[in-house]
Amino acid sequence: MKRSDRIGSIIHILSQNPNRVYSLNYFCDLFQAARSTVSEDLAAARDILAAMKSGQIETTAGAKGGIRYVPTISDEEARELLDDFCHRLQDGSRILAGGYLYTSDLMFDPNFVRGAGKIFAREFSSSGADYVVTLETKGIPVALMTANLLNLPLVVARRESKYSEGTTVSINYVAGSSGRIQKMSLAKRALKHGSTAIIIDDFMRAGGSVKGLRDMLKEFDVAVAGTGVVIASMLPEKKTVQDYFPLIYLGEVDENAKNIDISLNNEIFDKK
Amino acid sequence: MKRSDRIGSIIHILSQNPNRVYSLNYFCDLFQAARSTVSEDLAAARDILAAMKSGQIETTAGAKGGIRYVPTISDEEARELLDDFCHRLQDGSRILAGGYLYTSDLMFDPNFVRGAGKIFAREFSSSGADYVVTLETKGIPVALMTANLLNLPLVVARRESKYSEGTTVSINYVAGSSGRIQKMSLAKRALKHGSTAIIIDDFMRAGGSVKGLRDMLKEFDVAVAGTGVVIASMLPEKKTVQDYFPLIYLGEVDENAKNIDISLNNEIFDKK
Repeated sequence: MKRSDRIGSIIHILSQNPNRVYSLNYFCDLFQAARSTVSEDLAAARDILAAMKSGQIETTAGAKGGIRYVPTISDEEARELLDDFCHRLQDGSRILAGGYLYTSDLMFDPNFVRGAGKIFAREFSSSGADYVVTLETKGIPVALMTANLLNLPLVVARRESKYSEGTTVSINYVAGSSGRIQKMSLAKRALKHGSTAIIIDDFMRAGGSVKGLRDMLKEFDVAVAGTGVVIASMLPEKKTVQDYFPLIYLGEVDENAKNIDISLNNEIFDKK
Repeated sequence: MKRSDRIGSIIHILSQNPNRVYSLNYFCDLFQAARSTVSEDLAAARDILAAMKSGQIETTAGAKGGIRYVPTISDEEARELLDDFCHRLQDGSRILAGGYLYTSDLMFDPNFVRGAGKIFAREFSSSGADYVVTLETKGIPVALMTANLLNLPLVVARRESKYSEGTTVSINYVAGSSGRIQKMSLAKRALKHGSTAIIIDDFMRAGGSVKGLRDMLKEFDVAVAGTGVVIASMLPEKKTVQDYFPLIYLGEVDENAKNIDISLNNEIFDKK
């Protein structure tokens, strides 16, 4: 096997399996190559990914040690992704009765949620979370992509308690904007007590769902290490939760002028 | 830039963007390299991915032509994935009241659905589909991963018509096992008339949901090019749909003996 073949193979394997820990021996066996050779190949792969601003290959020592690829997204790529998203979101035909926006096509677009997942994974890469948690339905794709990049299990709270969930914990929460009482439920076996989670959702108005998820996690004795939402509405100004990380702020939606005010969360950029 | 750097970069970009068409010029500009050089690099990248049985780099001529990575999964990798899945599925503690199985952790496991998506993407890679369609909730992750690999939009039918979906089409369908009438709805703007879709879902008993989705697609004048389900129950023998592609067959679930009969769909293997 040639050097370029080994480097190409390493990059493919790591790109496909973000945050999974591989031993050096795994690659030695795969390539029938010496440790010194594989170490050099890994250094080359690390430089290539770093040059592309696509993430780092980290080496950790010890019994649980090994090599893992921690993906990221460059500021330029993030900006390009979100600019395109905003452009699509600002299409006046998205405005529905009551000033709601049709966003299903965007939230189910694999290319968008893959990129948004990279931004969340970058933001929460050192959160120490054990799970990514969301509430069904439209937040599932972006939460899954985030979980995939962080190599964490995804946990999805349901709006109704389904028989296929077994014993469930149900809580009531107030949908912040309407003030209506809603219910969410989660399988009792879904989360380990005493662990840590990040919450990812597609949209936040007053923060009712996120607050509900936080209350739910409290029932499981699970700490919240971060909250990411794709779109946060500017109104109401008073949210039921404080610390959250949005990608986009949604301002006024003018049904008559078919105008949709949007701005990027500039805190995304120039952090690293 | 060294040859191995260019090859590594090509593999990373293509691995991250399956089935997206790139022009040769894209890579020429990126690397500041001649077309002949990039062509050689692409040939090397193609050989590396082929040697790993991870898919093909296809070159198409013409105005819409270019280079794209068509991912696949080897029979060995598919078997390993499904053996592990079966092993986890056969855990007797998954058996719920009424003989149902708890599968949420598996269907929301990024590593599993990524692999299952590869098997479906391999099966349906030449289906000519424009969309991947599913019914919420537990089928969303595997459907998203399939859509991601095929570079197609995901469309999710909802159980209730939500205000955030705008004008919807709702249909009634019979949940095959219980005989109960259920409802599903889909935004009118979600699908283009006259297009083609594949259906992906997590579980099929009598086929009610899949039949419902097919009826829904008929309302949109959308042809069905294939149906994939992760688990198909052996019973009832008589399904409401005939042609479907399961990964796993679920046999008898014995609540007392805590025994779960499972077998792989052997048609997955040795097809290519």
